[in-house]
Amino acid sequence: MDAQLINPFIKATLNVLETMAFMKASPDRPFLKQDNVAKGDVSSIIGLSGESKGTISITFTEPCILSIVSNMFGETMSQLNEEVMDAVGEIANMISGQARQVLEGKGKVLYAAVPTMIKGKDHTISHKTTAPIMAVPFKTEHGDFTIEVCFED
Amino acid sequence: MDAQLINPFIKATLNVLETMAFMKASPDRPFLKQDNVAKGDVSSIIGLSGESKGTISITFTEPCILSIVSNMFGETMSQLNEEVMDAVGEIANMISGQARQVLEGKGKVLYAAVPTMIKGKDHTISHKTTAPIMAVPFKTEHGDFTIEVCFED
Repeated sequence: MDAQLINPFIKATLNVLETMAFMKASPDRPFLKQDNVAKGDVSSIIGLSGESKGTISITFTEPCILSIVSNMFGETMSQLNEEVMDAVGEIANMISGQARQVLEGKGKVLYAAVPTMIKGKDHTISHKTTAPIMAVPFKTEHGDFTIEVCFED
Repeated sequence: MDAQLINPFIKATLNVLETMAFMKASPDRPFLKQDNVAKGDVSSIIGLSGESKGTISITFTEPCILSIVSNMFGETMSQLNEEVMDAVGEIANMISGQARQVLEGKGKVLYAAVPTMIKGKDHTISHKTTAPIMAVPFKTEHGDFTIEVCFED
């Protein structure tokens, strides 16, 4: 995977959080995953196909996603209920949509599948691919989250 | 979603388990999900795009997937390690591939994304779609699993 491909996903993540949840996040340096496992309490996954086969996933700790969705809704959310899980899928959808639009402008057309959301304390996510998986950890003042992107060229 | 579309996924599931793990599974009647949540210990998810946008997921209890993979490998697997998780993605890949081949023969071409695997005790899976989600529970002598399929027409 061309490492440049991760940048539209980082920018889209920052933009979605800022415009939807009025929240600033700081990305750490992207890294190639060695252990193939992201860990968290809530995830959303979107399969990608088209010019490449791939996937994007975003994995949050519980306090982090509750803060984000509370900001989005303008009311305090204290439980991982159906509304919160739906918002997690919508966040992933918006990140995927904005990043795919930028990539399409560069001639790389990708189609997104239906987002899936996962809830489970300390669950782990891995991807069945021989392609490198780029991971980007983000920090917010309310906790951390990670995005992972892979493409099979 | 055309309810007929679920049948190739049921047949593919039975065939993959029988040929790869020498295991017979019994499907219960497919149902439309009301609560939008599957629960289990290990899942694999594959996004679908092409003529429709969709997703397929398969969710196992721990004893069930350990029995299936033990049969596949010809040795007793007692932990949800990396090899087992890889096999879960491979099972999903084979089910998706066989079902998509049948659907393609009927003129419905779908492309599969990279499979994602989830591990976490009692995690739940939901899908961000307004389309109906077809769920099929399967029983085996070693435990239960569920497949879920949705397409946005």
